[in-house]
Amino acid sequence: MRLATVLHNDTPQLAVLNADTQKLVLLSVAAPDLPGSMTELIELGDAGLTRLRSAVDSAGGDALVDASSVTFQAPIPVPRRDVMAVGRNYFEHAQEFHDSGFDATSGATAVPEFPIIFTKATTSVTGPTDPILGYLDPSKTVDYEGELAVIIGLGGRGISKADAFKHVYGYTVCNDVTARTLQHQHKQWVIGKSIDSFCPMGPVILTADEAGPVEEFHLTTHVNGESRQDAKVSELIFDIPTLIECISEVITLLPGDIIATGTPVGVGIGYEPPIFLQKGDVVKVTIKPIGSIENVVE
Amino acid sequence: MRLATVLHNDTPQLAVLNADTQKLVLLSVAAPDLPGSMTELIELGDAGLTRLRSAVDSAGGDALVDASSVTFQAPIPVPRRDVMAVGRNYFEHAQEFHDSGFDATSGATAVPEFPIIFTKATTSVTGPTDPILGYLDPSKTVDYEGELAVIIGLGGRGISKADAFKHVYGYTVCNDVTARTLQHQHKQWVIGKSIDSFCPMGPVILTADEAGPVEEFHLTTHVNGESRQDAKVSELIFDIPTLIECISEVITLLPGDIIATGTPVGVGIGYEPPIFLQKGDVVKVTIKPIGSIENVVE
Repeated sequence: MRLATVLHNDTPQLAVLNADTQKLVLLSVAAPDLPGSMTELIELGDAGLTRLRSAVDSAGGDALVDASSVTFQAPIPVPRRDVMAVGRNYFEHAQEFHDSGFDATSGATAVPEFPIIFTKATTSVTGPTDPILGYLDPSKTVDYEGELAVIIGLGGRGISKADAFKHVYGYTVCNDVTARTLQHQHKQWVIGKSIDSFCPMGPVILTADEAGPVEEFHLTTHVNGESRQDAKVSELIFDIPTLIECISEVITLLPGDIIATGTPVGVGIGYEPPIFLQKGDVVKVTIKPIGSIENVVE
Repeated sequence: MRLATVLHNDTPQLAVLNADTQKLVLLSVAAPDLPGSMTELIELGDAGLTRLRSAVDSAGGDALVDASSVTFQAPIPVPRRDVMAVGRNYFEHAQEFHDSGFDATSGATAVPEFPIIFTKATTSVTGPTDPILGYLDPSKTVDYEGELAVIIGLGGRGISKADAFKHVYGYTVCNDVTARTLQHQHKQWVIGKSIDSFCPMGPVILTADEAGPVEEFHLTTHVNGESRQDAKVSELIFDIPTLIECISEVITLLPGDIIATGTPVGVGIGYEPPIFLQKGDVVKVTIKPIGSIENVVE
C-alpha cells in the first residue's frame, strides 16, 4: 500500500493512495478506529496493515477523494526523533564529495570503512511539494541529495542483517538538502543538514510487503528538468541490512524511525565549479516504484 | 525551582524539589490541572511556572514526600527529538581531544572556528542514577564527558545573542558518555555518542529564574571518587548565547529542546595512555548549584 498524510479540507489525516486510479481512501472516514498519526499506525505493525487493507477494500462514498484535491504532507510530518542519514554511501558520490573539498571528515580515502551516520532535525522535514527555504542558508551553497529513506516498523536493538528486512515497514523518497559551506565549517554535519525545510519527504510510504526487491528501486534527480542523478539502490556501499545492523547494534530502533540511505553521484558540488541551487530552481527526486517529490527553491 | 520527573509508587510524574529540606512536591496531587509531562509543562512557559509556584507554596499532606522515597528519572525522559550537543567547546579539552587522535574532524587546529554541533539519540537518555550500559560498546573505549545542558523554553528561529537567555527555561547536568573508537571510526559522531544509556541526565531542571549567573556554575567530574574534571561554565569557547544564536539561525528551536554545551579538560582520552571506563566504575558529575548525577558502569 501507499500510505500518505494529507491535508484535506485543512485537516491533516492519513490516507491510502491507489497509484493507478489516483484516488485516495481517507482513513478518518474509512477506518475511524485506526489512529490518526502515521507513527501510531506504524506502531500497530502487521495488525494495523491488515485492518487497513480491509478498510481500503470496502471503502466508498465520502471515503474516496481525488489525489489532486488534497495537499500531501511528509508521510511522517513530525518524526518522533531526528532523521538518521548516511553519508558517502555510493562509490562515485563518495569520490565526488571527497574531491570537492567540502568534507571535513574524509581523511585519506573517499570510501568509508564504516557507515557515516548523522542526523537531520525533525524541523527540517517538509512535504513533497513544499518549498525549500534556500534563503535560510547564509552561505548560499544549497545542494540537493536525492535519497531512498527506510521507515522502521518493528523496533529493537541488536538486529542482525538476516533479520533486518523484518524491521522495515516501508520506503519513501527524500531530498537530503545540504548547505555545503555550513556542512564543512561546522565539521559535524547537523547544522548544514538541518536547516528548516531541508528534508522534503514523500509523497507516500510504500509498504515493504508490496515493494518488491528494494535493490531494484531506481532513483533519479532532475533540476529544472535536467537529469543530475540516476542510480539503482543496489549500488549502495552499505546496503539496508548492513545499516540496520550497524545502527541497532548500539541504538534501539523505534517504530517510525527514518533512515535516509545516502545519495548517488551527481550532486551540485560534483561539478567543477560547483553548481548550487538558486531561487526558483525546481528539484524533482523520483524513486520507482514509490513516486516523486518536487520542491521549488525559495 | 528544581523540576524533576520521578517514579513514585511505580508511576512517573512531575515533582518540585526543595533542595534544603529534600522534600518533593508531587504535582499529580498538588497541581493536577498541570500537564503530566515535562515537555508539556515547558510549553506553558512563564504561565506554567507561575501556576507551579503557587501550587508548591500551598502544598501539604499527600503532596509532600521525601526525595529519598522516589527514583529520579531524566527530567525529560523521552525528549521530543535528539539531544543537541557541542564538541570541543572548552580550550584545554579541545587540545586534549585533538592530541588524542580520536577526532576524525579536527584538521589543523584544535580550537574550532565554528561550533561543532552533533546529536545524541533520544534512546540514549537515561536517569541520574541509572547504569551506563558500557557492555554495549563493542570497542570497549567508553569515556565520560561531564556537561551542562541547557533546556530551551520559548522556541523560535533567528534568536539573537542579546535575546538568547529569554529562551532558556533552565539547566540540568548531563554526562555525554562516548564510545571513542566508534566516534572515530564512523567520522560523524552520532553512533559513538548515542549508545543506549549513554546520556545520563538530571537530577532536576534548575529553572533559569532561580539559577543566578550561569557563567559561575561550577562543574566537577569524579570517577570512583577521584577528581577528573573541574571547570567554570565561563570557560566555554562558544558561550550559551552564541550557541543559541548559531543553532537557531537555521533550525527552529522548540520548547524542551536540550543543548549539551560541551565538556572541559580531563576526559579519559586526555591521559597517556587513555583511561577508559570499566565495569563497576562510578562516574559522578556535579554542577553547583544544580546537583549531581552518579552512574555505575555495567
